[in-house]
Amino acid sequence: MTTATAPKSLKPTFPSAGKRIFNFSAGPAILPEEVLHQCQQDIWNIAGSGIGIMEHSHRGPVFDKVIDEAVADCRKIANISDDYEILFLQGGATTQFAMIPMNFLSPETSADYIDTGVWANKAMKEAKLFGKVNCAFDGSKDNYAHIPAANEITLKPEAAYTHYCSNNTIYGTEFTSAPKTSTPLLCDASSDIFSRPIDINKHAMIYAGAQKNLGPSGVVLIIIRKDFMAKGKQGLPTMFSYANHAKEGSRLNTPAAFGIYVMGQVFKWILSNGGLEGMFKKNIEKAKFIYDAIDNSGGFYKPHARNDSRSLMNITFRMASEDLDKKFLKEAQALEMDGLKGHRNTGGVRASVYNAFPAAGCKALAEFMNDFAKRNG
Amino acid sequence: MTTATAPKSLKPTFPSAGKRIFNFSAGPAILPEEVLHQCQQDIWNIAGSGIGIMEHSHRGPVFDKVIDEAVADCRKIANISDDYEILFLQGGATTQFAMIPMNFLSPETSADYIDTGVWANKAMKEAKLFGKVNCAFDGSKDNYAHIPAANEITLKPEAAYTHYCSNNTIYGTEFTSAPKTSTPLLCDASSDIFSRPIDINKHAMIYAGAQKNLGPSGVVLIIIRKDFMAKGKQGLPTMFSYANHAKEGSRLNTPAAFGIYVMGQVFKWILSNGGLEGMFKKNIEKAKFIYDAIDNSGGFYKPHARNDSRSLMNITFRMASEDLDKKFLKEAQALEMDGLKGHRNTGGVRASVYNAFPAAGCKALAEFMNDFAKRNG
Repeated sequence: MTTATAPKSLKPTFPSAGKRIFNFSAGPAILPEEVLHQCQQDIWNIAGSGIGIMEHSHRGPVFDKVIDEAVADCRKIANISDDYEILFLQGGATTQFAMIPMNFLSPETSADYIDTGVWANKAMKEAKLFGKVNCAFDGSKDNYAHIPAANEITLKPEAAYTHYCSNNTIYGTEFTSAPKTSTPLLCDASSDIFSRPIDINKHAMIYAGAQKNLGPSGVVLIIIRKDFMAKGKQGLPTMFSYANHAKEGSRLNTPAAFGIYVMGQVFKWILSNGGLEGMFKKNIEKAKFIYDAIDNSGGFYKPHARNDSRSLMNITFRMASEDLDKKFLKEAQALEMDGLKGHRNTGGVRASVYNAFPAAGCKALAEFMNDFAKRNG
Repeated sequence: MTTATAPKSLKPTFPSAGKRIFNFSAGPAILPEEVLHQCQQDIWNIAGSGIGIMEHSHRGPVFDKVIDEAVADCRKIANISDDYEILFLQGGATTQFAMIPMNFLSPETSADYIDTGVWANKAMKEAKLFGKVNCAFDGSKDNYAHIPAANEITLKPEAAYTHYCSNNTIYGTEFTSAPKTSTPLLCDASSDIFSRPIDINKHAMIYAGAQKNLGPSGVVLIIIRKDFMAKGKQGLPTMFSYANHAKEGSRLNTPAAFGIYVMGQVFKWILSNGGLEGMFKKNIEKAKFIYDAIDNSGGFYKPHARNDSRSLMNITFRMASEDLDKKFLKEAQALEMDGLKGHRNTGGVRASVYNAFPAAGCKALAEFMNDFAKRNG
């Protein structure tokens, strides 16, 4: 069946409908071109079934295979044991911000939140609707420019869980390893999931909106340890209980079938491109082009993130003035480099270079940065 | 831009990757082939942007146009005034079963639920978690074989709202007009939305999972009257407040962008094929092929739905024995008619013939039914 074919072996049968440009979007973000070609075929007719992937019953044999393979490939990528459930839910990471405390926090209990950016902060605020919250680290003091060292984090041993965000898309900072805790550790890995090796076993739960490293928006990957999941509250609305979704294999109701299918194709692409070690090696090389251009600019490019906290996924910097930033973005756009405008919280430039983003695009941006600095320095 | 082009004018540039068969799936269900061809193009590069539809920022100009057109076309299709918000949410209709009472029901108030099938019943059960519920009609007594007449429905004037399901996918029954109420009327129209003219103004809210008549699973269309929406509770989790989503134009967080895009293409397809009057006329003709085959079979095919309650979307019937049902399904499959197996609650056969299902498929099924009855009667 088509779904069993690794994308590496795909021969695109569709003409490319126009030239593609370098897409530095922070998310929804670039997908592997092999995966896009596979989608083009399977939208019409998947696995010789005579029916497209969007049109198959979510309880039929074709979709059974799609979701079973997605789960199996996900386990393979990150060496995830049967102690964990793999779920595909809807509503984005933002729905998880509520669903986590709805399941695991009560007015009588408290949770630790490490606040390293806008999304970590939103997760923390949402938890306050359900129980007590300890802000274990407040990154806002330096506008979220760094990842805290262990001695900057104040954890409570009685916490129901500790929550952190592994990569901060807006600020361009990234944890290089999971923070140490004695309580169940929960991670929002939306913007760096499967971009480097990850120690699943340090976590009670990892979740990630698909739209950066895994697929289209509209599906969230959840990796949750079964013994932690079992602590979830009883009597919740049907759709807000992890245990309910797990019991039905992510098909409690009609899931985001197409999103799960694309995610499965991306998993195959990761596996056929060296797995997490392969992704990591390539991501280091890619980010180096751009960080070198910053570091060799004699201060022309001012990075937002502290050197020891730099993200491999989102690279943030600005110039001496907003006018220069604007000029930079305009010239980059003319060179077919799109999506480089920084978030309003940091200003300047943000280059998002997720797994599927090509090294050639990083090299092209670095070359343009060198040239622009020379002309405007 | 490509998104502004009505699908009618599309010239498929992709070869069909294999022959397609008649897909009678109850959902996810068949989509218009013109829309699938447009998807094949736009997945690679939409509107000459050099970036595919799944890869565009949900806050960029290309997606702005996609969502703005989807909203405008939706309004045009059903003549929806500015008194209503059009929202695209995630989580399926099942999440709406909880979100509705979470917003509009309290332990002190009660709501009326008209129970005409499995989904209506699930909606009612979920509401009991939030407040009092009056079962205004209990269809289970005849295994949900009919739509209640006005005198079979016991409404309470103090109800916060009245909820009904306009088409019952499993049983094959359908309301031909909205029930009369003095309280705000809410409709789960997942399986017959935009298949016939609809009087929006009789409703405070209409919602529909996309995967039958509108697009891929993973996106829910919500049409909600602003004054009713304003009654929603304050202090809810961010993602569970309709008002929050409306304030941000369905982009409170990253929406199911691809699903919204496909829905927008389906809206254009509806508009270019006669709108709701055109859909209705075609759906009457299509269903007639199959109902005629039932009615002319001399009792060989036993319909589940009472004659006055027949759905144009899902046609349910069985034969004298389960063995005959099985034989029927096996032979139909061999003739490339897929997805005809009835739900376990009714058994037998279910032919789902949503908007995008071709008349040729209904004719082919009817001819097979006539032939099968002759050979096995």
